[in-house]
Amino acid sequence: MTDTVSLSPTPEPYTLAVDGMGGDAAPDVVVAGLDIAADRHPGLRVLLLGDEARLAPLLVRHPKAARVCTVRHAASVVSMDMKPTAALRVRDSSLRLAMDAVAEGEALGVVSAGNSGAMLALAKIVVKTMPGISRPAMAAISPTARGDIVMLDLGANVSCDWRNLVEFAVMGEAFAKAVLGLPAPTIGLLNVGSEELKGDERLRQAADVLRDSPLAAQFHGFVEGHDITAGTTDVVVTDGFTGNVALKTGEGALKLAFDLLRRVFTSSWIAKIGYLLVRPGLERMREWLDPRRYNGAVFVGLNGVVVKSHGGTDAEGFASAVDVAVDMVAHGFNETIRARLARMGSLTAPVTRGEPDASRDVVEQVP
Amino acid sequence: MTDTVSLSPTPEPYTLAVDGMGGDAAPDVVVAGLDIAADRHPGLRVLLLGDEARLAPLLVRHPKAARVCTVRHAASVVSMDMKPTAALRVRDSSLRLAMDAVAEGEALGVVSAGNSGAMLALAKIVVKTMPGISRPAMAAISPTARGDIVMLDLGANVSCDWRNLVEFAVMGEAFAKAVLGLPAPTIGLLNVGSEELKGDERLRQAADVLRDSPLAAQFHGFVEGHDITAGTTDVVVTDGFTGNVALKTGEGALKLAFDLLRRVFTSSWIAKIGYLLVRPGLERMREWLDPRRYNGAVFVGLNGVVVKSHGGTDAEGFASAVDVAVDMVAHGFNETIRARLARMGSLTAPVTRGEPDASRDVVEQVP
Repeated sequence: MTDTVSLSPTPEPYTLAVDGMGGDAAPDVVVAGLDIAADRHPGLRVLLLGDEARLAPLLVRHPKAARVCTVRHAASVVSMDMKPTAALRVRDSSLRLAMDAVAEGEALGVVSAGNSGAMLALAKIVVKTMPGISRPAMAAISPTARGDIVMLDLGANVSCDWRNLVEFAVMGEAFAKAVLGLPAPTIGLLNVGSEELKGDERLRQAADVLRDSPLAAQFHGFVEGHDITAGTTDVVVTDGFTGNVALKTGEGALKLAFDLLRRVFTSSWIAKIGYLLVRPGLERMREWLDPRRYNGAVFVGLNGVVVKSHGGTDAEGFASAVDVAVDMVAHGFNETIRARLARMGSLTAPVTRGEPDASRDVVEQVP
Repeated sequence: MTDTVSLSPTPEPYTLAVDGMGGDAAPDVVVAGLDIAADRHPGLRVLLLGDEARLAPLLVRHPKAARVCTVRHAASVVSMDMKPTAALRVRDSSLRLAMDAVAEGEALGVVSAGNSGAMLALAKIVVKTMPGISRPAMAAISPTARGDIVMLDLGANVSCDWRNLVEFAVMGEAFAKAVLGLPAPTIGLLNVGSEELKGDERLRQAADVLRDSPLAAQFHGFVEGHDITAGTTDVVVTDGFTGNVALKTGEGALKLAFDLLRRVFTSSWIAKIGYLLVRPGLERMREWLDPRRYNGAVFVGLNGVVVKSHGGTDAEGFASAVDVAVDMVAHGFNETIRARLARMGSLTAPVTRGEPDASRDVVEQVP
């Protein structure tokens, strides 16, 4: 991720609120990760939320992190298995205070390795959904044969209407610009076939709106499951149910391939020698396909940048999550969405296409 | 597939109606495939539908096929790109006559390498949906780390209600018994998380019904995308949209892994030598993961066995599709479903759980 930051580095200082206590190895990994990130991003300032007594000695050991961090004490922690509804009631958690800092304009974004369901719920209640967006979505970067792509929604919204899908396309395009550095990312709508008549009304409606929008030139139409890994489009848009299943199925299939490869390479002495000869290439391949390479997902469509690091990440992984947040802030992710929405607002206004379906609350639905 | 037939071979002769003209290399590959199948299944009789003038010389060259086949002339062919609605209007196609033969009790099942959308449409109109089943589904066998599993629906029904999902579970269980030879296959319902509260109302309702049914002991609950390839359950049940995307995403991810492996093995002379040392194991692995290993999919929930071979199959592949049909007939696939439905009929009756959602016709939706 580091090299994409160099696309157009912003010299101004910007502040991220970092949840010091979220994740399996917090706060140690968080502070160690910030030490790496501080080195990479000269403009970075961090408001670090958490248990002051535990954070202070760690910052002594990580002077680069200490240079960019201001610690603010948080008396409690949202545990990894806390229900979102319970997390909403804890007013003094490190995650809550990080969200508060964005809501109050002290920081432009949040990075946490904590509980993702609680993160989405708090982000919606505290940071709030961006004007013009009906529902935030969860996006992530995925490796393909052709390079990296962006996929969303990955589970924030189990059911979606056509309007949500159009908004995901807008947000995915802005994300691919900001984080992958693509000037004009192409967009595909995930379906069971690429013909115009495939899928349900919701998909056809979303496709009609996109074909008729300022994104028309970038809209590729419908794509299928195999197009995700083929990298047919730079952005793959789908509802949170299908996206979540597709993401986990793809990761599962790659894991199956690696498990079987391991059996092949250990099946005989000759195969073991073969393994030694191809090991460097295999390690590059494994690294390329590792779902943790970009470490985590991003909640898009909020009044601030909200990046979720994997709970079990190491310091390097946490620094990658900070990279993503820095990319999004430095490349004006939310400004790109706002500008796009302003140009296509009338296209998604319910009055012209019928009211979007009523959908229930999805706070409990995050994977 | 051949060895699963030996589980409980049926000595009685049984007739399959085979579409001689369906597929990219028909009728040659079809007759050559029947030659292989005739050798494997002594009880097999085939009603072969197609252009008599083209089939007769092929049967002369394939005496084993000739021994089991009775040819019936069909004046026309359903082309691979014909719309299902158009295919329904052609009364004298080889595919239509094959379906007619099942409807009239002349054959127990149909095997075709032809147009799958047309196959489903014709099967629904001619062979008809089994009593107690609201909608047929498309099922297929998929390789996993733990052995083969059955997944359905793979695209016959873009949207499904809870009742459809319960019926898919019943049909998938019977399929795993008949074709994989498992005595008590376990069943998972695909969702975005394994907790009971995950997913939408439709999934929770289907899970409630299954937990309270004669299948309760085999019902594992919710599974996620990565459970498909992990082989967590023997049967994975989902709607046709999600199933289609998951199937194609999994296949795409495996293709990506093999494409990257090819790059690794050709990246240097040392790597090429390494490849030679592990080649036998790699070839076994590729064969194991090849989506064409079982060649095709099955439409379940009809008054007969309907097996779809891949359009581009070779003779061995077509024989595999015949193997599946033989397994389903010989192991009483439809009888197993009927017996199960009789025992759980009251559980899926709309009156006790609310009327299933209205859903539109899906004839055009097959992938």
